[in-house]
Amino acid sequence: MTLELPTAPKLDDAALAARLQHRIDNKTKPLGALGRLEALALRLGLILGSESPALVAPQMLVCAGDHGLAARGVSAYPSDVTWQMVENFLAGGAAVSVLARQHGLALTVVDCGVRHDFAAAGAPQGGEAPLGGQRSVGANSSAPRDGLAIRKIAPGTADASVGPAMSAAQCEQAIANGIALVRELPGNALLLGEMGIGNTSAASLLLARLTGLDIDACTGSGTGLDADGVARKRRLLRDVLALHADAGTPLAALAAFGGFEIATLVGAVLQAAHEQRVIVVDGFIASTAVLVAQALRPHVVQRCVAAHESAEPGHRLLLDALGLDPLLRLDLRLGEGSGAALAWPLLESACAILREMASFESAGVSQRDNT
Amino acid sequence: MTLELPTAPKLDDAALAARLQHRIDNKTKPLGALGRLEALALRLGLILGSESPALVAPQMLVCAGDHGLAARGVSAYPSDVTWQMVENFLAGGAAVSVLARQHGLALTVVDCGVRHDFAAAGAPQGGEAPLGGQRSVGANSSAPRDGLAIRKIAPGTADASVGPAMSAAQCEQAIANGIALVRELPGNALLLGEMGIGNTSAASLLLARLTGLDIDACTGSGTGLDADGVARKRRLLRDVLALHADAGTPLAALAAFGGFEIATLVGAVLQAAHEQRVIVVDGFIASTAVLVAQALRPHVVQRCVAAHESAEPGHRLLLDALGLDPLLRLDLRLGEGSGAALAWPLLESACAILREMASFESAGVSQRDNT
Repeated sequence: MTLELPTAPKLDDAALAARLQHRIDNKTKPLGALGRLEALALRLGLILGSESPALVAPQMLVCAGDHGLAARGVSAYPSDVTWQMVENFLAGGAAVSVLARQHGLALTVVDCGVRHDFAAAGAPQGGEAPLGGQRSVGANSSAPRDGLAIRKIAPGTADASVGPAMSAAQCEQAIANGIALVRELPGNALLLGEMGIGNTSAASLLLARLTGLDIDACTGSGTGLDADGVARKRRLLRDVLALHADAGTPLAALAAFGGFEIATLVGAVLQAAHEQRVIVVDGFIASTAVLVAQALRPHVVQRCVAAHESAEPGHRLLLDALGLDPLLRLDLRLGEGSGAALAWPLLESACAILREMASFESAGVSQRDNT
Repeated sequence: MTLELPTAPKLDDAALAARLQHRIDNKTKPLGALGRLEALALRLGLILGSESPALVAPQMLVCAGDHGLAARGVSAYPSDVTWQMVENFLAGGAAVSVLARQHGLALTVVDCGVRHDFAAAGAPQGGEAPLGGQRSVGANSSAPRDGLAIRKIAPGTADASVGPAMSAAQCEQAIANGIALVRELPGNALLLGEMGIGNTSAASLLLARLTGLDIDACTGSGTGLDADGVARKRRLLRDVLALHADAGTPLAALAAFGGFEIATLVGAVLQAAHEQRVIVVDGFIASTAVLVAQALRPHVVQRCVAAHESAEPGHRLLLDALGLDPLLRLDLRLGEGSGAALAWPLLESACAILREMASFESAGVSQRDNT
């Protein structure tokens, strides 16, 4: 590999941790009474290196790509839904569009390898100006569109059931794209989103290979396969896993199973960790990108907040492997970054508690009885 | 009882429910992929009687009162913390103050029976003008303060371990106060908050009496008693329960165990249900007010959303008794309305999904394969 991966040194400022904990414990509430919000405040303070952390210009990065394996019937939906949903993201009608708008999250959609030419599509085409304020990165297509970045490796990965989903060079390029994308984005928080018909299969394969868990446990119904469909998917994924038995390293596994959107997210996660951004992890597929990044740089996960636990059964196993405790359990299984967006206000609350809540001393409130 | 309680008729518009479900199912996402957010959207649509519900001018009502039983050592904190925290709410430094500000919730603090004279207190005293916009109701004290409503029944309830916490007339007056308070508030959503040293004891007693559950299971550490303290609290509450064995009706139990803030919240819940407002239930004590209101008017709970499940063990039992599924499980045990405020953005999201998300048809996205 010629690409130099960003480093992510261990966060180990014990003095800052002690100051943060003292600050939290002296807020006007019984010790620990804000529960997991207190642990979240501590983590955000440590990532941002501040006793009064403030989240600035949060960026929702939705990476999209198609999967050759989708032709094998692993999804309830046709591959065309990938590009159609990208158009829906851009038009503001998808769940993540609605939620990003609600919470003031800048939304950038990335064509990492969708089987569709967005520049040629019929939708209105904007100039170089971003969506609004500091929103979106410029596209490298000849006809850029607001909020869309074209970082296309190929129109979909190859079919992983007959060979590697991508070449090593393609995998490296997608990671490099993710790194470059985050470098261009403002702010100190990155929310991960993705779209790609067939990508729960890639995620299940990566989870099984990188953790050694059985592929059946890692495989679920995705967008809504019935029981027969899940059984077929499990048989197919077992065969695909066996076909790529030699893909033992994180990068080899990523190239073998795909997809372009996951590899781009791996780069984005590595760069965000390097820059000490808060990384808000969404569902099963976005978490897989963190799993790969963590395998490459073992302190990445210190910068991560798990937004939610998906209804896709592999997600809980993946979060356990990462040691992340999800904020929400709402049986979501949509992806797109929708769960990350839903959890976002909790991160804002944790920071506001640290910044704005009074201490017992400042508010003149009595401490607990010592009797 | 001379007070006429507001009615809360059954919500049973099956046609609206079907239209809402159809609308949810046709949004651009796999069927059910937004999980519990979809059930929440359905509920909010039914309460507000609309396929495109919008939450307007949400009101956080924090009711405060003191408890005679607190003198028996049932709390880790002294009773003075009640009034000190009311001052903290008004000064903007408490958790609920911070969270209400974050989410644009109008905050009204009610002195339902705090052992303190707020009008005589040293804090700066405003005129009749509300905190901002449509915030707060006017106080009936001679020297009203912004954001504070004085609806004081008495300076704390009587000690329930020697007699009823309040008289039937006091209980009725507190409920009437809650009804009148909500009548004066704008908007279509009410968030419940409370403050009162000793009030987990009242809540545990009410839960045990109204559900028949054993008092030990209903009793926890409150603001942070140690194991010995919890054991003492359990013994005391068992005795108090036995002392008021004849307090069998919801109102008799409420009068026997208190407190003024819970009774005021009962009135607020009844009036909010009557007006078809969305009621956002906070933790253990606020949920107890819903339990009493539900016992008086059996369809109240249809208008309720459970914000979270508290770390106080009785709360899960109480939510189960009400048939409510909490949105958040963050091990909160603070009260004040803090959990209701934290969950609020999820209600906004559910409404935004209904109002703003595209349908498959409008977005030109393919439906699932029928193969």
